[in-house]
Amino acid sequence: MKENIIKNKIKLLKSQSGTHSPSIATILREIPEIEIKVDGCFLSNPYATELFFKYMKEELIDTGDIIRHLEFYPPQNYDVAKVLSSTINITPDKLFVGNGAIEVIQAMVHRFVKNKMVVIIPTFSSYYEFKKNDTQIVYYQLQKSNDYMLDPQDYVSFVTKEKPDTVVIINPNNPNGGYISKKDLIYIIESLNFVENIIIDESFVHFAFEDDSYEPVDLGTLVNKYSNLMIVKSMSKDFGIAGIRAGYGIMQPDKVQSLLKNGYLWNISGLAYYFFQTYSRPEFNEAYEKVRKRYIGETQTFLKELNEINGIKVYPSKANFALVELINGSYSFDFSMNMLANYGVYTRDCSDKIGLDGSFIRIASRNVEENRIIIESIKNTVEQQD
Amino acid sequence: MKENIIKNKIKLLKSQSGTHSPSIATILREIPEIEIKVDGCFLSNPYATELFFKYMKEELIDTGDIIRHLEFYPPQNYDVAKVLSSTINITPDKLFVGNGAIEVIQAMVHRFVKNKMVVIIPTFSSYYEFKKNDTQIVYYQLQKSNDYMLDPQDYVSFVTKEKPDTVVIINPNNPNGGYISKKDLIYIIESLNFVENIIIDESFVHFAFEDDSYEPVDLGTLVNKYSNLMIVKSMSKDFGIAGIRAGYGIMQPDKVQSLLKNGYLWNISGLAYYFFQTYSRPEFNEAYEKVRKRYIGETQTFLKELNEINGIKVYPSKANFALVELINGSYSFDFSMNMLANYGVYTRDCSDKIGLDGSFIRIASRNVEENRIIIESIKNTVEQQD
Repeated sequence: MKENIIKNKIKLLKSQSGTHSPSIATILREIPEIEIKVDGCFLSNPYATELFFKYMKEELIDTGDIIRHLEFYPPQNYDVAKVLSSTINITPDKLFVGNGAIEVIQAMVHRFVKNKMVVIIPTFSSYYEFKKNDTQIVYYQLQKSNDYMLDPQDYVSFVTKEKPDTVVIINPNNPNGGYISKKDLIYIIESLNFVENIIIDESFVHFAFEDDSYEPVDLGTLVNKYSNLMIVKSMSKDFGIAGIRAGYGIMQPDKVQSLLKNGYLWNISGLAYYFFQTYSRPEFNEAYEKVRKRYIGETQTFLKELNEINGIKVYPSKANFALVELINGSYSFDFSMNMLANYGVYTRDCSDKIGLDGSFIRIASRNVEENRIIIESIKNTVEQQD
Repeated sequence: MKENIIKNKIKLLKSQSGTHSPSIATILREIPEIEIKVDGCFLSNPYATELFFKYMKEELIDTGDIIRHLEFYPPQNYDVAKVLSSTINITPDKLFVGNGAIEVIQAMVHRFVKNKMVVIIPTFSSYYEFKKNDTQIVYYQLQKSNDYMLDPQDYVSFVTKEKPDTVVIINPNNPNGGYISKKDLIYIIESLNFVENIIIDESFVHFAFEDDSYEPVDLGTLVNKYSNLMIVKSMSKDFGIAGIRAGYGIMQPDKVQSLLKNGYLWNISGLAYYFFQTYSRPEFNEAYEKVRKRYIGETQTFLKELNEINGIKVYPSKANFALVELINGSYSFDFSMNMLANYGVYTRDCSDKIGLDGSFIRIASRNVEENRIIIESIKNTVEQQD
C-alpha cells in the first residue's frame, strides 16, 4: 500500500525531471512519507565530503568568515582558473571553470560541436540531450557480449567510417564504470587526429586505477600535446560536493577565450571559489589522497560482495558505482521502488538509459555501513521477487 | 608612494577583468597592502544580508544541516521555479531560474536576440558585450542635459525608426540610477508592440519607489499581458548575496522550455536553493520589507548629503547608488585610487563606461556608518585636488 503510493508519486516526479533522477531534496519535499536511509543514486566519495567540510567548518563557519563568501561577488573565471592551475598542472589560459561540469558540457556541445557527434552508449544522457537542433548524433553501441567494455580498435574503425567533427568518451563510463586504460586512450586519440573535437569526460577518474597502488590517473596534460582534445572534470563526485557546483574544462586557449569573450561572468559561487582555493593547498591534497585511496579500496570490496549475490549480474567497473542487471526477471523500476519503500535505499533505475539491453539498476558505493545496508537490501529484494 | 604602487597594481588587475571591477577577493589576494574599509562598489543592501544570514545561521549552520546543501545535487530548474513562484506571483512555467541574473542575461542575449538590439547608454556593459557576432548593437544615448534620465517619447520614436528585434531597458538604470515610472514604462511597452523582445532588467527595482510609502514596484506580472516582455531580476543587490549566485527571468513558457530543453541542468547551487526557499516564507518577507524600506530611507539621506558636497555633481537616482561627476577637473581613476589608498573606500571609476561625457565615479550606499566614511572621504579628496 505505502509502497504503491510511493511508487506512483516517484513515477510522477521522474516524469518531471526528464532523464535524471529527482533530487533528494525534491523527493523529500514531495513525498514526506519516504525515509531515505542510503542515497545509492549519489555517486560521491563520502569521506572526501567529510574532509572538505572539516576545512570549511574550521575556516569559514567557526570563524564566521562564511558571510564574506555569500555576500560579495566572487572572482571572475580567469581568476579562479589561476587558483586551480597549479593543482592540476595546467596553465590558466587552458582552463574554463564551470558551475559544475554540466555547464562545461553545455558550453562545449553548444559552442564547439558542429554537424555530427559520435556518442558511446549507454552514456550520461546530457551529451546527446544538450545537442543543438542542427547536430546529428550517431551512437556507438557498447556490446553486452563484451560486458559493455570499449573495444578500442572497433571504436576507431567506427569513428573513421562516420567522420564526425566531435566524439565523446566518458572514462570511466557512466552508467557501467567501464575503464579504458591510458595506453588505449592514447591509441584512440592518436588514431582520431582527423576529429576536430575529442571530448573526454574524466568525472569519475579519481576512482579509477591502473594497478594496486591506486595512484591517480588522468589525461589533463595531454591537452598540451593534442590540440583537438578537451577534458571535462566534475568535482561533485570525487569531492562529494554536488551542491556547491564546481567543475572545469581543459582545452586550447582560443576555445577558452571564445567562451569568456561573451559570457560566463561570475559563474563561480563564493563557496565554489573557496573549494578551488582549498584544493590548491598541498596539505589538503595529501589528506584527500588518503581518503581517495581508502574509498577505492572499500568500493572494490563492495563490488566483490555485490558480485557474490545470486540473481543479479554486476558489470566490471573502475568507477564508484556498479551497473547491475536483474537476471531473475524483475523490472528495474519495481525493484528500485521496492528497495526504496522497504529499505530506504535509493538506487538508479536505468530503464530510461538508451543502449542497455535488459533490466538494469545503477548502485553507488557509499561508506562501509551504508554499503552493508545496500548489500542486505538487494539480497532480500532479490529473494522476495524469486 | 604607497598610493602609486596600489594604483599600478589596480590598473593591472582592471585590465585583466575587462569592463567590471576586480572583485574584493581578487584585490585582497593580489594587493595585500590594501585595506578596504568600505566597499563602495558593491551595490547591495547590507541589512538584507544580515537578515538572510541570521536565518541561515540558525537553520543551516547551528544545526549542521549546511552539509546536506553542499553535498547533494540541488533540484532542477523547474523545481526551484515552483518554490519561487508563489513569492513573486508568477506561474513556474514562466520562470527561468539562473546562476545569478548574469546567466539569465547571457541566455537571453545568446538565444532570443536576433539581428539588432537597441541598448540605452550608459548601461551595464554585459548586454552589449555578450552579443553574438551577427547581432548589431544600436546605442540610444541618454542626454546629459536631461541628467541622463530617459525621455519616453524620444526613446519610442528612436526605436520605432530603428526597428530592432530586441530592446533592453534597465530600471532603475545602472550606472546612474535613473528611474522610469511604471506609467511611463507601460507607455513604452504599449508603443513598442512591434518589437519581438522587450528585456526589462529590474535588478535594482527593490530600491525604487513611486511615493513616500516606499511600497514595492515591479512589472513581473505584466508578462502575463505582454508576450514580448522579458524580465531579468538579480537577487545579489536587494538581498546582498552576490556570492550565492541567484537570479531569475520571467518570460513566456515557450522561451523557458526552449532554454531548459537542452541545457541549464543543476544550474542552481544548494545554497541558492535554500535562499529561494527562505524567500518563499511570509515571515521572512515581512522582515525583509522592513530592512528594504529602512535602507531606502538611509540611501535617500546619503544621496542628499552627497548632493551638498561642492566640486561634484550627483545625478538623480532611485537605485542604491549615485553617479557622481567630478566637476573640479579630477580624473575619475585618480580620484577613485586616492579614495582607496588614503581612506580605504573602494568606488567604481566609470572611465570605461560608454555614453558618459565627463569624469564620473559610481558610489554605493552602504550602512549609516560606512556612508558617513564615504561622505567624509569624498569631501577630503575633493579638497585635496582643488
